[in-house]
Amino acid sequence: MKAAVLHAFDEQLTAKEFVRYEEVPDPRISRPMDVIVRIGGAGVCRTDLHIVEGIWRTKVDVKLPYIMGHENAGWVEAVGPGVEGVKVGDSVICHPLVTSGHCLACRRGNDMHALDSSFPGINANGGYAQYLLTGQRSLIKLPKSLAPKDVAPYTDAGLTAYRAAKKASRHLLPGEYAVVIGAGGLGHIGIQVLAALCAAEIIVVDRSEKSLELAKTCGAHHLVKAGDSDVEAVLALTGGRGAEAVIDFVGEGDAIAKGLAMTANGGSYYIVGYGGKIDLPTIDMITTEKTIVGNLVGTYAELVELMALADRGLVNLHTREYRLSEANDALHDLHHGRIHGRAVLIP
Amino acid sequence: MKAAVLHAFDEQLTAKEFVRYEEVPDPRISRPMDVIVRIGGAGVCRTDLHIVEGIWRTKVDVKLPYIMGHENAGWVEAVGPGVEGVKVGDSVICHPLVTSGHCLACRRGNDMHALDSSFPGINANGGYAQYLLTGQRSLIKLPKSLAPKDVAPYTDAGLTAYRAAKKASRHLLPGEYAVVIGAGGLGHIGIQVLAALCAAEIIVVDRSEKSLELAKTCGAHHLVKAGDSDVEAVLALTGGRGAEAVIDFVGEGDAIAKGLAMTANGGSYYIVGYGGKIDLPTIDMITTEKTIVGNLVGTYAELVELMALADRGLVNLHTREYRLSEANDALHDLHHGRIHGRAVLIP
Amino acid sequence: MKAAVLHAFDEQLTAKEFVRYEEVPDPRISRPMDVIVRIGGAGVCRTDLHIVEGIWRTKVDVKLPYIMGHENAGWVEAVGPGVEGVKVGDSVICHPLVTSGHCLACRRGNDMHALDSSFPGINANGGYAQYLLTGQRSLIKLPKSLAPKDVAPYTDAGLTAYRAAKKASRHLLPGEYAVVIGAGGLGHIGIQVLAALCAAEIIVVDRSEKSLELAKTCGAHHLVKAGDSDVEAVLALTGGRGAEAVIDFVGEGDAIAKGLAMTANGGSYYIVGYGGKIDLPTIDMITTEKTIVGNLVGTYAELVELMALADRGLVNLHTREYRLSEANDALHDLHHGRIHGRAVLIP
Amino acid sequence: MKAAVLHAFDEQLTAKEFVRYEEVPDPRISRPMDVIVRIGGAGVCRTDLHIVEGIWRTKVDVKLPYIMGHENAGWVEAVGPGVEGVKVGDSVICHPLVTSGHCLACRRGNDMHALDSSFPGINANGGYAQYLLTGQRSLIKLPKSLAPKDVAPYTDAGLTAYRAAKKASRHLLPGEYAVVIGAGGLGHIGIQVLAALCAAEIIVVDRSEKSLELAKTCGAHHLVKAGDSDVEAVLALTGGRGAEAVIDFVGEGDAIAKGLAMTANGGSYYIVGYGGKIDLPTIDMITTEKTIVGNLVGTYAELVELMALADRGLVNLHTREYRLSEANDALHDLHHGRIHGRAVLIP
Repeated sequence: MKAAVLHAFDEQLTAKEFVRYEEVPDPRISRPMDVIVRIGGAGVCRTDLHIVEGIWRTKVDVKLPYIMGHENAGWVEAVGPGVEGVKVGDSVICHPLVTSGHCLACRRGNDMHALDSSFPGINANGGYAQYLLTGQRSLIKLPKSLAPKDVAPYTDAGLTAYRAAKKASRHLLPGEYAVVIGAGGLGHIGIQVLAALCAAEIIVVDRSEKSLELAKTCGAHHLVKAGDSDVEAVLALTGGRGAEAVIDFVGEGDAIAKGLAMTANGGSYYIVGYGGKIDLPTIDMITTEKTIVGNLVGTYAELVELMALADRGLVNLHTREYRLSEANDALHDLHHGRIHGRAVLIP
Repeated sequence: MKAAVLHAFDEQLTAKEFVRYEEVPDPRISRPMDVIVRIGGAGVCRTDLHIVEGIWRTKVDVKLPYIMGHENAGWVEAVGPGVEGVKVGDSVICHPLVTSGHCLACRRGNDMHALDSSFPGINANGGYAQYLLTGQRSLIKLPKSLAPKDVAPYTDAGLTAYRAAKKASRHLLPGEYAVVIGAGGLGHIGIQVLAALCAAEIIVVDRSEKSLELAKTCGAHHLVKAGDSDVEAVLALTGGRGAEAVIDFVGEGDAIAKGLAMTANGGSYYIVGYGGKIDLPTIDMITTEKTIVGNLVGTYAELVELMALADRGLVNLHTREYRLSEANDALHDLHHGRIHGRAVLIP
Repeated sequence: MKAAVLHAFDEQLTAKEFVRYEEVPDPRISRPMDVIVRIGGAGVCRTDLHIVEGIWRTKVDVKLPYIMGHENAGWVEAVGPGVEGVKVGDSVICHPLVTSGHCLACRRGNDMHALDSSFPGINANGGYAQYLLTGQRSLIKLPKSLAPKDVAPYTDAGLTAYRAAKKASRHLLPGEYAVVIGAGGLGHIGIQVLAALCAAEIIVVDRSEKSLELAKTCGAHHLVKAGDSDVEAVLALTGGRGAEAVIDFVGEGDAIAKGLAMTANGGSYYIVGYGGKIDLPTIDMITTEKTIVGNLVGTYAELVELMALADRGLVNLHTREYRLSEANDALHDLHHGRIHGRAVLIP
Repeated sequence: MKAAVLHAFDEQLTAKEFVRYEEVPDPRISRPMDVIVRIGGAGVCRTDLHIVEGIWRTKVDVKLPYIMGHENAGWVEAVGPGVEGVKVGDSVICHPLVTSGHCLACRRGNDMHALDSSFPGINANGGYAQYLLTGQRSLIKLPKSLAPKDVAPYTDAGLTAYRAAKKASRHLLPGEYAVVIGAGGLGHIGIQVLAALCAAEIIVVDRSEKSLELAKTCGAHHLVKAGDSDVEAVLALTGGRGAEAVIDFVGEGDAIAKGLAMTANGGSYYIVGYGGKIDLPTIDMITTEKTIVGNLVGTYAELVELMALADRGLVNLHTREYRLSEANDALHDLHHGRIHGRAVLIP
């Protein structure tokens, strides 16, 4: 099959070609629950740039050459002998983690903390290719309203935003406030999810006017330009108390300290973006009784929930399509801020 | 009345006399809900040493001279014209915060986040005295089994430990683990509360053998000597995964980084002690999906719950009694690690 | 002052005049926290008809003559000496229960289960009058967007619907279903609350085409005409499984058995309306693992939350105004099904 | 293999032999996830008597002849080609439900509400036999401390009691009360679970002195003899308010009405036993705001949790052993109240 393959890390992201479009062996079924999916679309994520930079080498075992692409959807091409529940030809979206389902975390529905899993596109071959090897437990059948290429980025970008926003919605009451920092690929989904799942007033903070405009169409009630007085602006909007929930899709630079400052006493700061540091005296956690919540993608059931929102039009995703052979163009466009919404590679 | 009064800060805690035992004016009822309590006992807390050091000056408005003592119990001496529910002579324990009860936080039972409150012994005159001015909403009538001088330290040390342990108990399931870092004045209560409220296995980490012995009698299932290999020891006890809840009663030095390292993926690190810093890359919060939870004393209802545990003998407090005129001895003994359990001043 | 006074029960509701419009003594402040409110509007509730019928005599202590009216809003006219937080002239809505706030239920924010309370219009004189005696703890200041006469019915009809719908929204996930039985005075609020607080698909069952039309404008996604095949229609809409939440605003006749039959296994049936009986073999509760949830008005904090929804236009109430002197017209119109939305008496 | 086979229903339970001990074909692996377990012990449950009576015919599809026995533990004898996680020779306890794991309920950890399942011993051949056909997803490996024959009854009797008591423990606070009605096979486990998972005071109601004695050793704090004044006794113990949780392991006769009467306003009545009817005016559910909770066995993860309690000695099960060939003796002894604890058949 054809695939866009990563052969070398590039710490400065200066190469013209990050990946090489070439012929590779087809994936093969070897275990009873294996499934091969013909890719309809594969999302291009900032994490892919971080992989090219080599940042993830310290977190997971990545051996080159390999195929990136952890946001995948398509059609079932072949199934192992133990597979039930999906059949060849079904259009499916792929939960990013492939699990056996035996461990207690999986049995409790908490797939992301499976003791035994692989993450195609991160620590195994992914979906920048014609075909992807995954497992039965990762597949969700799509309703007819949703085409694979249009929903692929929901599997990671969408699901991560969904899970964080859902956690916040569980405690946000009418009359309370949610701040979303960063209305980009994840943030614009997070805003829509908040608007669908609770009645808190949504304040969006971003440095780009264009992103704030997008935030407005996604359901934001108040827009704040990121900058010198953004914390003050949020405090002014919230009666001086801050927001009961702050979801930080940036997670680097001064977003972290500001996000915590925007959080009300007794409130929660949800961290989704990464790259920066939390640096905070413990006394500040005690006197304010804030909670800092880490967020890691989402469960299979949560991807089903997100598809239900998408199917009903309550969440919409902006995508820009590239051929698989143009993977380098997509990666460069993302690196240089030329993509609004999410790039999707189509084999 | 007689009181032990703070006249000057002492950053290095080198003075022989931190407070002066002297005659001061009696407190007086001025508002309908005011209550004056004759002190039966006032707990001596490490926070009092921090107040003497001047650390709290940046957090709350403290004007010298004033009377410390925020852990108080005694008997109702006088009541304002609007007071119902308690009467002169009742033996009572005092929730540390005095609130009007009007704000939404109070109406939801979340007293600690009252918009309008005073904290006797912190930002108003406290209980190192014969009499204390407080409010009706702060008082809980004591059952006959509990004498004021024996329970006074529950109002802050006990309540803080209770709230953090209760939060953890809400998600700890049989087969899971709780780590308690620090089995001192708060920690030894926290261990007993965990043992009463859930069936998690309790691992206690402390550098003192004596504290570990106390931990054992409080219900700890595993003891770990704090030191070079404490994190490894906890991981070994928990199947390599860490504990689903870590409650850190130290909150300074390497306890914070170690506490986070002892926390299982998807688990929660509860911070109670203070003095140190949280210093953590955001990526570590994302890949582990941990939660960091700040803790601020506890609610009135939670103090009622703690009294129920004490009344039934499920929680016991070790105290050492001093006369009010010996307040400096108590403070020095605390400063120099000579108190096991909690010092209580008796007028 | 003028008031519409109930002098005699009327089990068959055949009298021409249920209440008598007459001069009565003004209420007077006697306790520190008492407040007198000048009525701007008093809602007329089906419970008032049940009071006239004498049904409530067995549940609460009602002595004739007395003044009905438990849905009240207006302006503060006079305050007791202990009152803080509201002042003469403030426009306010009255939580229906008057509590002292001392008991543990109140301290946990669970006002409706106060050990010590009165319920003006039920077991004390209510708001079918120019003035109402209530307490400070019952008052919520209104934003300028909301006039007393327009919001009075929120205090009982609205709040009851809000609380039940909020409970359901806490567990309803995207892809799940909520059934609302009865789109009348309470139900039409319940639908709006569900739509604001969660993303479940809302199915409304009612026997009136007009009510179903109203339901549509309130946010219902599916309409089912009550009748022979309503259970089947709900099962068909929910993939044969039933709805994860059913809120029954009727609570009599066959609504109860049907509501339980419309509830999915593992789901919850919320009962709000009354008059009928639950009649169910225990084995059916075991094999289906359903939950039956009783609902009693709502807390003070929940009325604040509902006002936040109303202020933002997320919930709207249809009212029809009558002069206080026309109270009997309003009661008769309600009795004979001539009121759509809610009648409000204006002194 | 040998098995005790049910050939005919017996509505009056008058037959001398309910089942026939005879040779039947061995079960065979036919699907990738099938597992055959060599039975170490099979619990004898009152439900088995109900099956003999024919009661369950209306609820599930039962075809005679078949083999009862839904509480099974033993050793893995053979595995299908897709099985991972257990291997031949492992000692295991069998979750009573066999599921494929594909449906959303399973993916959320809510196995009991699987769309696709079988229940050996109820609607498929069970464990009154030498071998049992089950599935990989039903098996939990036993720690060395627990022998199959000693734990078999945990899979249904124990798990059902665990789940109901766990639900109650999630909301029971110190100072609150739990009533357990019926301290028999399930009840005596429920008491131990409550004592392990929360600090509520436990009141046990039973008509047998012997059961009340057992309840005492299981951790009950108050014993009430079932009879004319049991409701009054519970109200007296709970300050007139009733218990925040009532768990009814009887579920027939007057237990239901009494259980509801013993439940505090705002509290929950958990129904586990069956045979009787709930018969209640809806107005009583509204004015008291009680909740009635159905309970259906428990999840796989909950059986893991229960095994953790058993492994640590926090829950103990009283069993009486019979040979498999003596199955009729066990059933008759159960029918005539001659078994205290739980009968277990050993092949």
